[in-house]
Amino acid sequence: MTEILKGNLVHTPSFGRLETLPGGFLLLEDGVVRGLYRSLPREYAACPVTDWGEALILPSFADMHLHAPQYPMLGMGMDLPLLDWLNAYTFRTEARFTDAAYARRVYRQLAEDLISSGTTRVAMFSSCHTDATLILMEELERAGVTGYVGRVNMDRNSGAVQEETEASLSETRRWLDACRFPHVRPILTPRFTPSCTDELMAALGELARERDLPVQSHLSENSGEIAWVRELHPDCGQYWETYAKYGLWKPGTLMAHCVHSDSRERQAMADAGVWAVHCAASNVNLCSGTAPVRRLLDQGVQVALGSDIAGGDLLAMNKAVVMAIRASKLRQMETGEPFLTVPEAFYLGSAAGCRYCGGGAGFETGYPLHAIVVDDAAMPEPARSLELAERFERAVYLMDKRHIRAVYSEGRRVLG
Amino acid sequence: MTEILKGNLVHTPSFGRLETLPGGFLLLEDGVVRGLYRSLPREYAACPVTDWGEALILPSFADMHLHAPQYPMLGMGMDLPLLDWLNAYTFRTEARFTDAAYARRVYRQLAEDLISSGTTRVAMFSSCHTDATLILMEELERAGVTGYVGRVNMDRNSGAVQEETEASLSETRRWLDACRFPHVRPILTPRFTPSCTDELMAALGELARERDLPVQSHLSENSGEIAWVRELHPDCGQYWETYAKYGLWKPGTLMAHCVHSDSRERQAMADAGVWAVHCAASNVNLCSGTAPVRRLLDQGVQVALGSDIAGGDLLAMNKAVVMAIRASKLRQMETGEPFLTVPEAFYLGSAAGCRYCGGGAGFETGYPLHAIVVDDAAMPEPARSLELAERFERAVYLMDKRHIRAVYSEGRRVLG
Repeated sequence: MTEILKGNLVHTPSFGRLETLPGGFLLLEDGVVRGLYRSLPREYAACPVTDWGEALILPSFADMHLHAPQYPMLGMGMDLPLLDWLNAYTFRTEARFTDAAYARRVYRQLAEDLISSGTTRVAMFSSCHTDATLILMEELERAGVTGYVGRVNMDRNSGAVQEETEASLSETRRWLDACRFPHVRPILTPRFTPSCTDELMAALGELARERDLPVQSHLSENSGEIAWVRELHPDCGQYWETYAKYGLWKPGTLMAHCVHSDSRERQAMADAGVWAVHCAASNVNLCSGTAPVRRLLDQGVQVALGSDIAGGDLLAMNKAVVMAIRASKLRQMETGEPFLTVPEAFYLGSAAGCRYCGGGAGFETGYPLHAIVVDDAAMPEPARSLELAERFERAVYLMDKRHIRAVYSEGRRVLG
Repeated sequence: MTEILKGNLVHTPSFGRLETLPGGFLLLEDGVVRGLYRSLPREYAACPVTDWGEALILPSFADMHLHAPQYPMLGMGMDLPLLDWLNAYTFRTEARFTDAAYARRVYRQLAEDLISSGTTRVAMFSSCHTDATLILMEELERAGVTGYVGRVNMDRNSGAVQEETEASLSETRRWLDACRFPHVRPILTPRFTPSCTDELMAALGELARERDLPVQSHLSENSGEIAWVRELHPDCGQYWETYAKYGLWKPGTLMAHCVHSDSRERQAMADAGVWAVHCAASNVNLCSGTAPVRRLLDQGVQVALGSDIAGGDLLAMNKAVVMAIRASKLRQMETGEPFLTVPEAFYLGSAAGCRYCGGGAGFETGYPLHAIVVDDAAMPEPARSLELAERFERAVYLMDKRHIRAVYSEGRRVLG
């Protein structure tokens, strides 16, 4: 089916580049973008048109690092040091996901919250509970969220949610065999080096190779953690090598945080095709630091953004984009690295993750549409008529779910 | 009239102290707080009760630095350097307020936005337009916002909105004579030293003394500004002395920012009873820095918070409280100064400004009620039943106007 969306189109077709088409036309064939036009070519004059009027049509967001079972503790425990936070909140909250009915309710709420906030792509940590993980994937699928979910592996230093090594592996295989979702795919998820024995890491590396699965984990979030990893792996010069040793450091591996990744670690990411996921709010909340995003980009590392709930308190990815800009301004003041502009940060929070998931950058031809329709009419009355680029910036800073009138995910209208 | 509010009461009666009364009772007489009770004393059993059920009742917020005529440019121009931002957006936007009808529309929207976001106290900059300033005060009064508004004085270096010295003074007198509002009072507002001639500063100091008026301005926001002030006033060792020289540095003077105030400048504030208004979002957005809030407090300076729209992009003061916490965590990482806890930052964003305006700290007996009723039922379902202090923290981080069911200002219910 051929159809047209009409509205004020704004997108970032490449990093740092903003393209605006006031009153433009987006041509779709079965949900796949076939063209963007400033005026509609005559051959499409008879196609059905959805006219979004004065609203903005923007690419939707991709949240490439978040912990689904921490959604219930969003915005709590933020005054605690990392280890107390893990013990008082994180592990105890995650332990609740043995209860399938609870998992169903919380994950339905989370999936709906993601869509109504404009997030249609994710790379998500579940917990170590296989059934709850499958429920999570079902609920994402139902709401229209696409991307990756990982059942978490953790067989040491993990409090109430620690697994036996054998059980961790057999449950992972049971989970993988049960994954049959059209838009939500599995990703192997060793929690992080301190919570996985060498035996588990080796077996997961083998599984990744055998079933050709992507991998996600955490890297160089804070200095205490880095020192701990060094103790656990005295043979590894740097943190990343503990993943590389077991075949988990490979193209498409997602590494959250990278706050303290130095030039050598960054180069190892670029060389291997490993992605960094920048989680600015979490890094500040937990006093981890500000990640060297500009340096990662300059060294050729692919960077996407994550909300990292519940270390992060902002599920809405436009707020995560703004926090990435703020963190980059703080780094500029400290180190002189140029801050992220609005189009740059928006690209990292939308197109980057979309490309990771096999989609296009912005409204790229040949890829299923991922978009949000933003009604900014109720925002403060401006002093003069605004350029579309200005309305785009204002929407990134100010919008919340009340402004999001419709959401398209993988070519389907899933909200509004 | 005696009445009772019932609900989950949480407030900060002093800096850093959180008091929680689950299912508590707040006794009001003609809107003035007369007592807080865990169970209702028998003599009040016949009083009318407003039962807010499971909702939280918290003190409302005080926004002690914001620019009303910059509301139309909220969330725009954030990638520009300060001077370009001033010229491309600020002065041109402020110039629109010669138009009374435009001022009426924008200020009505702003006043309603403040109340529905839970802000009932302000110290606000208007523009240099007398009539628009009176319209602003009327609209605040109508919506239920209380506090201070200043007609801005600026007779040099001020682009499209610069005034003649004489006109600035005569218009200020005309404005003062026309101020007849029960809850919104005038405050003298020299924009900042670089935009006021010595003659204007001297006359304003005289006016402040003569009519016993408070004063608000800006201090030590960024290093370029500080160098400029030094050039303009080679006789003054520090920025603050340019205000002191003209009688504007006195008890109750509000100074926004103080990002670069060193120990001597901080001591001068403490000694004179001058208040610092911390505007964390603005300071990051404009790459000014992070203010030494803990040091200001330790030296005995009174500190309140401001949204500083539109240098700040967050009108909702709970978000400004969270940004103050984030900025303090960044400073802790940099300097070791302990970060602001949630109760500390909440006190600065509510009780501090309320006390500045002559009110009480939290639900202090003897003062008119300023409160919000927060319904957190739609927040993520927790993994266990939460303590009231946890719900309070979560509300500070997550709430937006959808959660605010009612607002009380100066003892009157102004929303819900």
